[in-house]
Amino acid sequence: MKLIIGNKNYSSWSMRPWLAAKSAGMHFEEQIIWLRHPETSAMIKATSAAGKVPILIHGDIMVHESIAILEYLAEIAPQLWPEDRESRAHARAISAEIHAGFLPLRRNCPMNIKRRPKAIALDDETLASVERVVDLIIDCRTRFGGGGDFLFGAHFNNADAMWAPVVNRLHAYDIKVPAAVRRYMDAVMATPMWREWEAAALEETETIVDIDSV
Amino acid sequence: MKLIIGNKNYSSWSMRPWLAAKSAGMHFEEQIIWLRHPETSAMIKATSAAGKVPILIHGDIMVHESIAILEYLAEIAPQLWPEDRESRAHARAISAEIHAGFLPLRRNCPMNIKRRPKAIALDDETLASVERVVDLIIDCRTRFGGGGDFLFGAHFNNADAMWAPVVNRLHAYDIKVPAAVRRYMDAVMATPMWREWEAAALEETETIVDIDSV
Repeated sequence: MKLIIGNKNYSSWSMRPWLAAKSAGMHFEEQIIWLRHPETSAMIKATSAAGKVPILIHGDIMVHESIAILEYLAEIAPQLWPEDRESRAHARAISAEIHAGFLPLRRNCPMNIKRRPKAIALDDETLASVERVVDLIIDCRTRFGGGGDFLFGAHFNNADAMWAPVVNRLHAYDIKVPAAVRRYMDAVMATPMWREWEAAALEETETIVDIDSV
Repeated sequence: MKLIIGNKNYSSWSMRPWLAAKSAGMHFEEQIIWLRHPETSAMIKATSAAGKVPILIHGDIMVHESIAILEYLAEIAPQLWPEDRESRAHARAISAEIHAGFLPLRRNCPMNIKRRPKAIALDDETLASVERVVDLIIDCRTRFGGGGDFLFGAHFNNADAMWAPVVNRLHAYDIKVPAAVRRYMDAVMATPMWREWEAAALEETETIVDIDSV
C-alpha cells in the first residue's frame, strides 16, 4: 500500500487518510509530491486525472479523494467507523460536512503545522464557521463520545481524521474555543500518529509564502 | 423512512438520495421544505443543526449530508455501490469529487429541471469543469461500465445518483458534449425515478428568480 501526499506542513487533505491508516496500524509507503511547484500538477496527474492528493495505491487499485480513501481503509479496518449504525451514519455525515463545508474557516485559516499559535482578525463568516465547528464537536462528543477522548469515544476514527486539520486551524490561529473543545484538540494532538506527522512537518524546508504570511 | 428535501425543481442535493432510494425500490415518505423562504432555515434546523437538506429520518436515526445518506442507504441495499472493490472505490471517489468539486459548473449552471435546454455563455473556468466532467464520465464508463447504460454498468447506483444533477446541468444549458456522454445522460433521464422526480418538479409552482433568470 502506498499513499501519495502533499507537504505535511500544509496539506490538510493528505493528513486525513495518513492519520487514519496509522491509527489502524496499517503499514504503507509514502510518496510526497511538493505542492505549488511548476511540475506539481503534472506529477499528480501522471497517477490520477483528478489532479489532487492524496492518492492511495493498493496493488492495482488507485483511489483518489480523501473520503473515498477513508471508506476504502475502513473496508480493511472496520474499526475506522463506529460499530453502531447511528454513530456510523453521524460520523459519515460530519465527515461529509467538513469535506465540502466551513469554507470561510478553511480559506482564511489554512492548515499550517509549523505556525506558532497566533491569533488573526476573523471576519463574521469565519466566526460563524467556528461557531458551527464548536457546536458540532461538542454535540457529537455529548451524544456519541461516551466519555472518551475522541468524537466517537475512546478510539480515533475516520471522523477524527477528517476533522484533524480543523484541530490545527483552531490551534494555529489561537481561536477561542470552549474548554471541552480544547480538551478534544489536545487529545488529537497527543496521539502518536499526530506527533509523527507533526515531527515530519517540522523537518520540511519547503515553504508556501501565501500560507505562512497569513 | 422519511426523506426531507427541498424543491424538486432546484435542489440538486435532495435529488441524489431520492433517486438512489427509489432506484433500490425503497419506500419512504417525503417532506418538502421550500427553499429560500424566510422560514426555510429555521424549519430545517428544527431537524438538523447543519441546516441543510436532504435529511433522512429512519426510526430514531437522523442522517444529514447526501453522501452520508447514500452510504446509509447502501448499508440497507448494498447494490447501491458496485460489488467489485476497485469499482466501489472509484464510485466513492467520483461521488466525493462531485460533492466538493466542479464549483464553476455548479455555480454558473444551477440545476433547473423545468428549464428548456438553452445555451448560455460559459467562462473558461466553467468550460474547464465541463471538460473534466466529460472526461470523467467517459473514463468511468470505459473502465467500469462493461457496456451498460450507467457509470458502473447495467444498474443505476449511488454514483449515478451523485452525478444526476450534472446530467441536468449539461442538458438544461445545452452544453456541447460527446455522443457517449449524451447517451449516458439520456439513459439517466429515461429511468423511472428520474421521470417521477421530473414530473413532480414540473408541477411545482414555487420559483427561485435568481436561478430561473440564468
